[in-house]
Amino acid sequence: MTGRLTVVGLGPGDDRYLTREASDALEAADALYGYGPYLDRVPAQAAQTRHASDNREEGARAETALRQAAQGASVALVSGGDPGVFAMAASVCEAIETGPEAWRALHIAIIPGITAMLAVAARAGAPLGHDFCALSLSDNLKPWEMIERRLDAAASAGFVIAFYNPVSRARPWQLAKALALLARHLPDRTPVIFGRAVGRADESLTVTPLASAHEVAADMATLIIVGSRETRLIVCEGQAPLVYTPRAVEGAMA
Amino acid sequence: MTGRLTVVGLGPGDDRYLTREASDALEAADALYGYGPYLDRVPAQAAQTRHASDNREEGARAETALRQAAQGASVALVSGGDPGVFAMAASVCEAIETGPEAWRALHIAIIPGITAMLAVAARAGAPLGHDFCALSLSDNLKPWEMIERRLDAAASAGFVIAFYNPVSRARPWQLAKALALLARHLPDRTPVIFGRAVGRADESLTVTPLASAHEVAADMATLIIVGSRETRLIVCEGQAPLVYTPRAVEGAMA
Repeated sequence: MTGRLTVVGLGPGDDRYLTREASDALEAADALYGYGPYLDRVPAQAAQTRHASDNREEGARAETALRQAAQGASVALVSGGDPGVFAMAASVCEAIETGPEAWRALHIAIIPGITAMLAVAARAGAPLGHDFCALSLSDNLKPWEMIERRLDAAASAGFVIAFYNPVSRARPWQLAKALALLARHLPDRTPVIFGRAVGRADESLTVTPLASAHEVAADMATLIIVGSRETRLIVCEGQAPLVYTPRAVEGAMA
Repeated sequence: MTGRLTVVGLGPGDDRYLTREASDALEAADALYGYGPYLDRVPAQAAQTRHASDNREEGARAETALRQAAQGASVALVSGGDPGVFAMAASVCEAIETGPEAWRALHIAIIPGITAMLAVAARAGAPLGHDFCALSLSDNLKPWEMIERRLDAAASAGFVIAFYNPVSRARPWQLAKALALLARHLPDRTPVIFGRAVGRADESLTVTPLASAHEVAADMATLIIVGSRETRLIVCEGQAPLVYTPRAVEGAMA
């Protein structure tokens, strides 16, 4: 009997972003693994075991789940957002590559989820309406100089930029430095969107011009989208503005 | 009575990627607008009107839907994938910005969906496991020189790149040119993923080294992901290989 490991994306926030495929995969599993608060979002089932672990133990969690799958079980590993975007799917692949040969024979499936960038963009309008990139601001896993080079490249080439992992207790200065760097490429009025805890009861959205973006508070639950030169803001009386990036670049013919 | 326009992302393929929020929004609408094949994916309801239009009429469709919402209706505009990624949400914002003042008073909501890039990535492993960008290869809406500049910037800075709209009957040569340009920055062995019709019965996935990527057929239903220098391939006997981009850049300390 060949075991199965399914990495399931729950989307951000509560269960509004859960897909049918994700829901089915969670129901079919013998055992669930994941960061505690994500597991808490999955309805309990009598015959299913649950294994919560700390947020920082991604590698160990992937290995434990693979080990149980290798014994023939159907294991689901839950992930917030999309497991493929700065999340568990890469950890699982890393573990398989460096682990025992038998793990390569397991049935591995990844179930995509709504990633925070898409949820925040939807709340704001359509800031990702044209070319964009997603960048982790964490310099735990790559040198800060590489982040600066990527920010320079993306902003000068005209990509809208989404920041994942903008701030943590151990990384207090990186976001302000990144915003200052982008200000060298982009107009002061460029819209910047701070989406915090989207899909949760305490969600908040702040839209601010780049020139004052450094004044907005952010934490690990915040996803930030910095517009390009093309990104526009529509003022809507009595409502939040709509921020969007047009499909056509100004001056280009449709 | 204030009207409402909700732009609803269905995800790619069949209804496996539909979220609960999208499903609820479709049920609550008085009228549905959209490209015919997308509308066909939504279960019929007696009290709901349906208005199918051609794929190329995005601007006109957005305006018609806004006009009905301005009469007090609750209108849903359906979009494949995520409406915010090269899709309907930006068309709606454009129509609102240039349309009558009253449209700015409507309740506008965007419901995110799984975009093709996430679905294809999930099928292949975790190619978007680190920094990545999404780029439309269509030069209908921006000059080809700008696309080349963005490809250069993204590849040389180390982003994984997802191509939307890689090929159409009117744009036969752009994909080969883009791949040749990336070959100047990336090793021949760089994994390239061609995901076609993901989530549909006729879905297919091809993984090939960059050096032979030009031999793979692609069309408008294809989403292509080109790895970075960091992207790796794990051979799994009797199964498709796993393609992933590690969380940490080689040489960086965790």
